[in-house]
Amino acid sequence: MHWTALDIRADRQRREPLYRQIVAHLREEIRGGRLPPGTRLPPTRILARQLGVTRLTVVNAYAELEADGLVTSHVGRGTFVAGTDGETPVARTWPPSATPGRPATELLDEFFRMARGPGVIAIHSPTALRELVPVKELQRAMAAVLRREGAEAVGYDAPGGYAPLREWLGEHLSEIGIRAAADSIVITAGTQQAIDLVTKLLVQPGDVVFTDSPTYVVVIDLLEARGARIIGVPMDAEGARLDIMETLIVRYRPRLFFTMPTFHNPTGITMSLERRRRLVTLARRHQLPVLEDDVHRDLWFTPPPPPLRALDRHGVVLYASGLTKSLLLGGLRLGFLVVPPEVKRQFVTAKQAADLHTNSLIQRVMDTLLRQGRLERPMVRLRQALQARRDRMVDALEREMPEGIRWTVPEGGYHLWLSLPPGISGVALYRAAIQHGVAVAPGMPFFPDREDRGHARLTFAVESPAAIDQGVRRLATAARQLLRARRPDDSRDLRRPVI
Amino acid sequence: MHWTALDIRADRQRREPLYRQIVAHLREEIRGGRLPPGTRLPPTRILARQLGVTRLTVVNAYAELEADGLVTSHVGRGTFVAGTDGETPVARTWPPSATPGRPATELLDEFFRMARGPGVIAIHSPTALRELVPVKELQRAMAAVLRREGAEAVGYDAPGGYAPLREWLGEHLSEIGIRAAADSIVITAGTQQAIDLVTKLLVQPGDVVFTDSPTYVVVIDLLEARGARIIGVPMDAEGARLDIMETLIVRYRPRLFFTMPTFHNPTGITMSLERRRRLVTLARRHQLPVLEDDVHRDLWFTPPPPPLRALDRHGVVLYASGLTKSLLLGGLRLGFLVVPPEVKRQFVTAKQAADLHTNSLIQRVMDTLLRQGRLERPMVRLRQALQARRDRMVDALEREMPEGIRWTVPEGGYHLWLSLPPGISGVALYRAAIQHGVAVAPGMPFFPDREDRGHARLTFAVESPAAIDQGVRRLATAARQLLRARRPDDSRDLRRPVI
Repeated sequence: MHWTALDIRADRQRREPLYRQIVAHLREEIRGGRLPPGTRLPPTRILARQLGVTRLTVVNAYAELEADGLVTSHVGRGTFVAGTDGETPVARTWPPSATPGRPATELLDEFFRMARGPGVIAIHSPTALRELVPVKELQRAMAAVLRREGAEAVGYDAPGGYAPLREWLGEHLSEIGIRAAADSIVITAGTQQAIDLVTKLLVQPGDVVFTDSPTYVVVIDLLEARGARIIGVPMDAEGARLDIMETLIVRYRPRLFFTMPTFHNPTGITMSLERRRRLVTLARRHQLPVLEDDVHRDLWFTPPPPPLRALDRHGVVLYASGLTKSLLLGGLRLGFLVVPPEVKRQFVTAKQAADLHTNSLIQRVMDTLLRQGRLERPMVRLRQALQARRDRMVDALEREMPEGIRWTVPEGGYHLWLSLPPGISGVALYRAAIQHGVAVAPGMPFFPDREDRGHARLTFAVESPAAIDQGVRRLATAARQLLRARRPDDSRDLRRPVI
Repeated sequence: MHWTALDIRADRQRREPLYRQIVAHLREEIRGGRLPPGTRLPPTRILARQLGVTRLTVVNAYAELEADGLVTSHVGRGTFVAGTDGETPVARTWPPSATPGRPATELLDEFFRMARGPGVIAIHSPTALRELVPVKELQRAMAAVLRREGAEAVGYDAPGGYAPLREWLGEHLSEIGIRAAADSIVITAGTQQAIDLVTKLLVQPGDVVFTDSPTYVVVIDLLEARGARIIGVPMDAEGARLDIMETLIVRYRPRLFFTMPTFHNPTGITMSLERRRRLVTLARRHQLPVLEDDVHRDLWFTPPPPPLRALDRHGVVLYASGLTKSLLLGGLRLGFLVVPPEVKRQFVTAKQAADLHTNSLIQRVMDTLLRQGRLERPMVRLRQALQARRDRMVDALEREMPEGIRWTVPEGGYHLWLSLPPGISGVALYRAAIQHGVAVAPGMPFFPDREDRGHARLTFAVESPAAIDQGVRRLATAARQLLRARRPDDSRDLRRPVI
């Protein structure tokens, strides 16, 4: 085998170590192109002899060059100058992410990005109603907790959560019919983490998972990243359609059903009591765990039926909810999960692996606020504000919208759901609306199959009620334009709205 | 098919709906044992005719009984009284957790539980040095952020993290040789979550993952729950043994190497610069992603070598560290991950799925504290306190320990590692120590294979320095007792200590 002799000398008089001198020289030669890619360098013992240094000195020099990506060594073949792309990151060779298509949140983000244009009225995504955020209450509780507990409040906590908060929750949940010992409650970093923990424990790659269709968009990404196959259960005005679901269960043997029966995101639909009872029975018969996301329950205008978990006597329903979102404190990331006592230990271990435990300070602060009842008035004010905005939006829709467009009238939460006549795409409405200066969320990313079924999500949780009138007026103009332009064969590729 | 005729009447005069009357009657009969498990109830049309009600009334009654677990129905066979354990939770039918053995953290917790006995000196696990926790600084920053930003500080944030904090980190990381744009940093809920995200993205069930052996105990559970097979890379005084590792790589084709090269938990060992260079080269040659856990770096007594990530030019090292742990604020759960820009988007999507984003308020508070330099003096004080305790523990060990027992002398962090002579079990030392009134952590749970190789972890991060002298004295008594009792053939089942 041949190698390229090097014109190089090691200078023992210089302060720089010998191996570094070799590195510096070779680096310059390689970067300058005088030693082109593929050049074989002398074997270490040859170069050591040539330079009058130990072999280890040359080995070290080559190792450093290799760490810099300038050379590669192959056992039994020698050391070669690497390709010029010495900076090629190994990450490029990682296997592609498990997600088959584009993440649903990324799709939605792209739509949302255009919503930030100047003069665009945003009724696509909830915004904080700033004057209603209980900042003062939070400030006081924070100071009190730090004064009272000091170092204790910022140290490590039990993985399952701060015990007094779990106890408070256990008592409080009985008000909505849930019997749950503190011991079967796990505190999480928001409802989102509760969903993630359930997925981690119950869903393996290749499993089928059912969700409402449409559903909460982040759950689609979460399940796809887990390697699950998602089957959407269509909804009607009473919630997920159990008649269809039973057929699907027999066919797909799902591992989990994720549902949001109360003030559903994105549709605003609330599942009827009758349907809830039937769902619990169905789930029990098929031994199908149900994950109930109840994060919007406190935001009611009309009190909703009891949660699925309250109707469940068989540990078939896992209950996830939040402690901060409905108070516009969602950034504090505090939620919880009610699990059957039999599997509590597994959930605590999974929670510990995820992030050790939820923020100790925030748990203590919310515990203080909840026990002192300091959040009740802010909650009442928020409900009233949301209800007034819901009314205003529904009034505006009735006044402005052309024939053939329908919408839900939610009894709580943030969103309502617009259904377009056959042949009109939700994305087309979104685009036309942006041109008219209003942003809505197209329905497409909320469907597990990303199908455009002619829907849009509108939120009435916006700071200024006046924006609602103006926004709906612009949206109506856009819709009329689309309806006029529709040709009969446009309906070809679009399924009829599900709801 | 036969069924049991029911002695039941529906009373239209009562206010209670007819179906509820049927439910109440049957519930009482079943609970009273008059309708024993397995009893077949009349078909709905038969009972409806008998009672003079519609069939739907009976269907509803049976459905409610089924939801309560009192009856079960089988299509085509009829409705039967269920077993008396109507409360059998579906959770019992869940597949067992993916973890093959007992979680390592559970093993360790069990040892720790006995450490809480009265009069037991605890040198098994770090405790907060209360007077050094920067509570005042935190209090002030918290108030300032809430005053300045109000609702903004508690609302939703970008999944990747609060931009100013990521920018501060990008600048600050250059001090330890890491070039990272804000854009390649993801803020996490502590280092733990950073590790979890990497595992989620890179490791699939069945993959082989390498870790140091011994290693950080929660990582063992995390990887096993993911369905990974863990191979431990033995360590010597310079860190993971790369000579052994290279052979193992060829044999197992691992997906990831998790390592803690600086002030390693549990051993306190710091990987030498030479070894770091070789590790980066090795990883690059084999395209093996390395996850570097650098959470203890700031707790140095002697400045450590640069992180692996600083030596990496090829995106082969993922860097995880914390922002709160080294300040005894670990309960605030704030850490970060530096990832190659090519895969940043995947990490942000995974972070969003995990918990939407890290606590907005805590991110802002830490950003404020870091920019104002308010944490520098507390950090200096903490280092000095830890170093003084390390010295005190090493002095005590030299004074008290019998011949044949060795220990590491860490240059930072919380822990040191005791190695017993062949034939002495770490768990036996733990047990003897408890009897003498001192708690150490046996080495066994820290090894991925849960093998007892004759080690114990001692922590010098304890509140009272005097406890160190007393604790080590008691431990030495326990050790002497074990050494005396040792018979030559005791070494049979115990491997020689690795370190």
